[in-house]
Amino acid sequence: MQPITPQDINQSMLSAIENEMQHFVAQADNQGLQQFYEMMAYHLGWQGEGSGPEARGKRFRPLLLLLCCTAAGGEWEKALPAAAAVELLHNFSLIHDDIEDNSPLRRGRLTVWKKWGIPQAINTGDAMLTLAHLAMLRLDDSVTCDVLTDLVRILQETCLKLTQGQYLDISFENRQDITLQEYWQMVEGKTAALISACATIGALIGGAQPAVCLHYKDFGYFLGLAFQAQDDLLGIWGDAALTGKSNESDLISGKKTLPVLYGLSLGEKFAARWKMGNIEACEVPQLSALLESEGGLDFTQQETFRLTHLALDNFYLAEPQQPAKDQITEIASKFLKRTK
Amino acid sequence: MQPITPQDINQSMLSAIENEMQHFVAQADNQGLQQFYEMMAYHLGWQGEGSGPEARGKRFRPLLLLLCCTAAGGEWEKALPAAAAVELLHNFSLIHDDIEDNSPLRRGRLTVWKKWGIPQAINTGDAMLTLAHLAMLRLDDSVTCDVLTDLVRILQETCLKLTQGQYLDISFENRQDITLQEYWQMVEGKTAALISACATIGALIGGAQPAVCLHYKDFGYFLGLAFQAQDDLLGIWGDAALTGKSNESDLISGKKTLPVLYGLSLGEKFAARWKMGNIEACEVPQLSALLESEGGLDFTQQETFRLTHLALDNFYLAEPQQPAKDQITEIASKFLKRTK
Repeated sequence: MQPITPQDINQSMLSAIENEMQHFVAQADNQGLQQFYEMMAYHLGWQGEGSGPEARGKRFRPLLLLLCCTAAGGEWEKALPAAAAVELLHNFSLIHDDIEDNSPLRRGRLTVWKKWGIPQAINTGDAMLTLAHLAMLRLDDSVTCDVLTDLVRILQETCLKLTQGQYLDISFENRQDITLQEYWQMVEGKTAALISACATIGALIGGAQPAVCLHYKDFGYFLGLAFQAQDDLLGIWGDAALTGKSNESDLISGKKTLPVLYGLSLGEKFAARWKMGNIEACEVPQLSALLESEGGLDFTQQETFRLTHLALDNFYLAEPQQPAKDQITEIASKFLKRTK
Repeated sequence: MQPITPQDINQSMLSAIENEMQHFVAQADNQGLQQFYEMMAYHLGWQGEGSGPEARGKRFRPLLLLLCCTAAGGEWEKALPAAAAVELLHNFSLIHDDIEDNSPLRRGRLTVWKKWGIPQAINTGDAMLTLAHLAMLRLDDSVTCDVLTDLVRILQETCLKLTQGQYLDISFENRQDITLQEYWQMVEGKTAALISACATIGALIGGAQPAVCLHYKDFGYFLGLAFQAQDDLLGIWGDAALTGKSNESDLISGKKTLPVLYGLSLGEKFAARWKMGNIEACEVPQLSALLESEGGLDFTQQETFRLTHLALDNFYLAEPQQPAKDQITEIASKFLKRTK
């Protein structure tokens, strides 16, 4: 028999997450509601054109939750309903984001609103949000009532932060004077709050004491900020962005990301061109090189490093157990090297 | 000193509900998020053009919840966070419904999406839904942990039913063959589930035993169905609908309501004209008279009576206490006489 590797563990976790989510989403499939279920199953990459692992995303948030559970000394199987909950919550936000951003495609497939219209897409997102919270409530078999209400409250508070971050993100579109402070406030709500909640929830189910949970919370918070900084970097210097083929560069969409805000703060050549707007795909390689020469790439990279190290410092303060300690460290360092 | 009348009690409840809601929604008003708060305060009738009692609706659901709490022997003040929760939940669904139905006006005022755009309106609805659940969690001071998780679960399950009903309602727009059975299934989710939850939650906080809670649940369920049947009646024979001035008749919007489905099932003159579509405001008085002559008004009125009496039968089985027993009976009978 082969020894069990960390990769095997990750694989077991990933298929268990998928099963758990399928179990909860199946609740929606009552009499006459097949299509209601199908819209969710399509978005989650289980059904319809282009379904399969590529359509599902990395399931990074539930995986982090399960690993934090084992790092805190718990059994990850116990945390599966919570893992399903955070991934469903994340996907609710994607369904609504796609409408709000007017995005026709997600992971190469038509978005829910493009396929079924805005009314059904709004409602499908609402349903997925509800299924997320219902999944969390299923932990009533495995944790005490007090822990359960803590978990339910953490997820709801995270949800409020998500909507606050999203409010800022939408309002930034009509503003030219975004400060870096406002940018980080937006990222805190839109990205870091949920990743921080994943780490906290995992640790709490794993049996961590309140003081230790706080380290996990801070770990997830800084990891979330780092995640967004790296995402912003890839939005300009990632492969898809640089080719500019399918309007995937953040320079074309005009998004006010971290490197763009850095470039704008300098007020040099990049800023002058960017403020004129209407950047075409053919200009992308030249303009991203310009921003790089002004220091935008270095700045963003340094922020990602700084935040990832801050995240890991907090993680180690929690005295995580092996092999989860190494697995999480590896995931965090992969962040700095990812290309998509 | 004047004796305290049921009207005084209702007034005290209504202002306490408003205070409680304001307390919870104020949570959204962090640094830099004033407008995020304002969108919710506008929708709830507290701020902006046309704000005031007329813009707030009847607050029927939270009032019912508080009355059921006292009918079950409890103190209504204890149930205030739950009352705020159900009204916030109802208003979340209105904000999203207005986008989904493409409605420019609600109670004579511009809808949130008309004022701030679809992206902010979707997100504002998401936030209000979250504030609803957070309000419910504040009952942790006044009920046991087990009751709290029951209440949280009831609200989430209600929310899932709301989205199922909404899915059906949206899907009916593109279908010509809706059966009465499908219609009731839609109403069960879209209207009856929340009204039933209000009665159940009120009774549960009031200290009712499980068997008694079930009577309250059935009471609310049938009351919700009756409420919708009467709403459908007013959508054609109510004052606003009959004048047809502002496209307020369900005959103009083409909604498949109970009297319309009845008329369609007959396949007579009303059905023939309705199926041709494009009904103009000037045709409304004639067409509603036609549907009335074919029995559509009588049928809908009889359904409202039947369902209201079913509701009250279940209510009395719960052996409700006075004066709430009379107050709720009065509210139910008002249903049958309301004109808006």
